[in-house]
Amino acid sequence: MLDIAIIGAGPAGLSAAINGVIRNKKVIVFGREPKSSYLYKAEKVDNYLGMPNISGPKMIEEFLNHAKKLGVEFHEGRTLEVFPMGNYYTLNVENEFFEAKTVIIATGIPKANYIPGEKEFLGKGVSYCGTCDGPLYRGKTTMVIGEIEEAEEDVNFLQEICDKVYFLPTYKEIKHVSPKVEILKGKPKEILGDNFVSGIRIDDKELKVDGVFLIKETVPVTQLIKGLEMEGKTIKVNRRQETNFPGVFAAGDCTGRPFQVTKAVGEGAVAALETVSYLHKMDIEKK
Amino acid sequence: MLDIAIIGAGPAGLSAAINGVIRNKKVIVFGREPKSSYLYKAEKVDNYLGMPNISGPKMIEEFLNHAKKLGVEFHEGRTLEVFPMGNYYTLNVENEFFEAKTVIIATGIPKANYIPGEKEFLGKGVSYCGTCDGPLYRGKTTMVIGEIEEAEEDVNFLQEICDKVYFLPTYKEIKHVSPKVEILKGKPKEILGDNFVSGIRIDDKELKVDGVFLIKETVPVTQLIKGLEMEGKTIKVNRRQETNFPGVFAAGDCTGRPFQVTKAVGEGAVAALETVSYLHKMDIEKK
Repeated sequence: MLDIAIIGAGPAGLSAAINGVIRNKKVIVFGREPKSSYLYKAEKVDNYLGMPNISGPKMIEEFLNHAKKLGVEFHEGRTLEVFPMGNYYTLNVENEFFEAKTVIIATGIPKANYIPGEKEFLGKGVSYCGTCDGPLYRGKTTMVIGEIEEAEEDVNFLQEICDKVYFLPTYKEIKHVSPKVEILKGKPKEILGDNFVSGIRIDDKELKVDGVFLIKETVPVTQLIKGLEMEGKTIKVNRRQETNFPGVFAAGDCTGRPFQVTKAVGEGAVAALETVSYLHKMDIEKK
Repeated sequence: MLDIAIIGAGPAGLSAAINGVIRNKKVIVFGREPKSSYLYKAEKVDNYLGMPNISGPKMIEEFLNHAKKLGVEFHEGRTLEVFPMGNYYTLNVENEFFEAKTVIIATGIPKANYIPGEKEFLGKGVSYCGTCDGPLYRGKTTMVIGEIEEAEEDVNFLQEICDKVYFLPTYKEIKHVSPKVEILKGKPKEILGDNFVSGIRIDDKELKVDGVFLIKETVPVTQLIKGLEMEGKTIKVNRRQETNFPGVFAAGDCTGRPFQVTKAVGEGAVAALETVSYLHKMDIEKK
C-alpha cells in the first residue's frame, strides 16, 4: 500500500514527490514521459525564481535530476481511473492496479480537439499561452484562438507587443478586448507552414501569421474520479489543495490558472505537506 | 505612479517582482537586506524543485541574481503604513512617500508578539520609526526597543534631539551606538500610561518615558493597512492571493502555513499575475 500516489510527472507532481519523499512517505509518481508536457516545448522560461532564462527541456531535466537524487520512484503509464475504497484508493494505470492511502492529482492541462497542424507546430509558432510566449513575437503578427474568456488577457498582452493581433473567440461574449485587435469569426481549419508557422486557414480564407496562440479550456478530470467537484473546468481545491474527496489533493494546472511552473511547484509542495498531515491523522485515529 | 509596490524582499516578494517586470509593469520592491530573513540562516534547503541541496545564503544569492538580471528595482527601507486613496495606494516608507496602483504584501512570518499597551498607545507615544516621529519628542525621554541593527540609526538620531534615550536591543551585538545612550537589558513587560505613554515596565522595573520606539523587522500587517482582514495571525487571502482590499494582494509566509520557500515563490508569482489582470481591468474601465 502506497502512502501517496501522484498522478502526473510535471512540475506539480515532481514537487509533491520530493516533498513526500523528504517526509519519509512511500510515494510513486504515475505519469507519462515528460516530453509530452507543454513545458518540454517551452523555448524559454524566465519566471521560475532562481533559474533564470532556462529552456523547457533543461528545466525538466533539472527537475527530474532533483527527484532522482532523492530516490523518487516512477511508474510510466496513464492513470485511467481512481476508485474510492473506503479509507484508501485503487488506481487503474493502463490496467495495472495500485493501492494508495492518498492521491495527489497533478495531471496538468488536458489536451483535446486538435486543429490540424497544432501538434506539428507546437513550439514552432504554436503556443498555449500568450502571456508566456508573447515576448518571442515582438513586432510580429499573431492570432489568438480563445475557447475561454481568459484568452482576452493574452490578446490584450499580445496587442501591447505585437505589430498586429487577430482574435478568434469560440466562446460566447467578448468582454474586454483592446479596440486595436481585429476580431475574426469562423472555424480554424488548419495551421500552415513549413518548419515554422507562416499562416492559418479560417474557413476558406488564409491569413499570414507568425504565431498562433490556442487558449484552451481545461478539460474536466471528472472521468478520473467520478464525483470529483469541479469549478468550471478545473478541479475545485481550497488553499490546502484539498478536493471534495478526503485524502485526494490536487495541484498545478489542473486546479486552474495561472498555468505557470512556479504556481504548480508551490502547489505540489503544499499538497504533499497537507497529505502528510492527513496521513498522520489517519495513523492516530487507527491507534 | 508605480504599477505594483511589493513590500518584502524575500522569496515571495522577489518572485512577485520578476513576474511583474516580465509583464512590463513598473515595480519597486521595498524591503531590507535579505540577511535578516530566516532563509539566510537555513543550512540546507532540499525541497525547492530544481535546486537540490542548496544552502539558504546561496539560495538567496541565486534569487537576487535572477531579480537583478531582470532589472528589478529595490528601495531599502521599512514600509510603515499603506493608505488607501480610492483607486491607488500611498506607502509611507520611513517618511518617503510612494504611490502605487496595487500592492503586494510579502512581509514573511508574522511575529505577532505585541507588548501589552503597544496597540493601545500606537500614535500616542508608541511609534515604529524613530527617524520619522522623533522630532515630536524634542527635549523629552524616550526608549528604543530594537529587534534589528537598523534600530541603532533611530537611537543615534533620537539621542541628538531627546534629553535622554534608553536603548534595549533584542538582537545579538551592538555596533555603533552613541555613548550618551543608556543601554538596558531585560524583557519589556508593559507600556504604561493614561491617554498617552508615561512609562514602561522592564522586568520588575518601571521607567518614566515619554515615548517608546519599537524598531521591528516588519511592521505588524494589521498596522500596515488598517482594516486588513486576518485569519488568526495571518492575512486572509483566497486562491488568487486577493485580500479584502481591491488591488492589495498577499503572498508567502504572511498568508499562513506551510512556511516553505516553494509555497512563497509560487504564491508570489500568482499574486503578481493576478495584479497584472487587475491592472488591465483598471485600464479598460478608465477608457
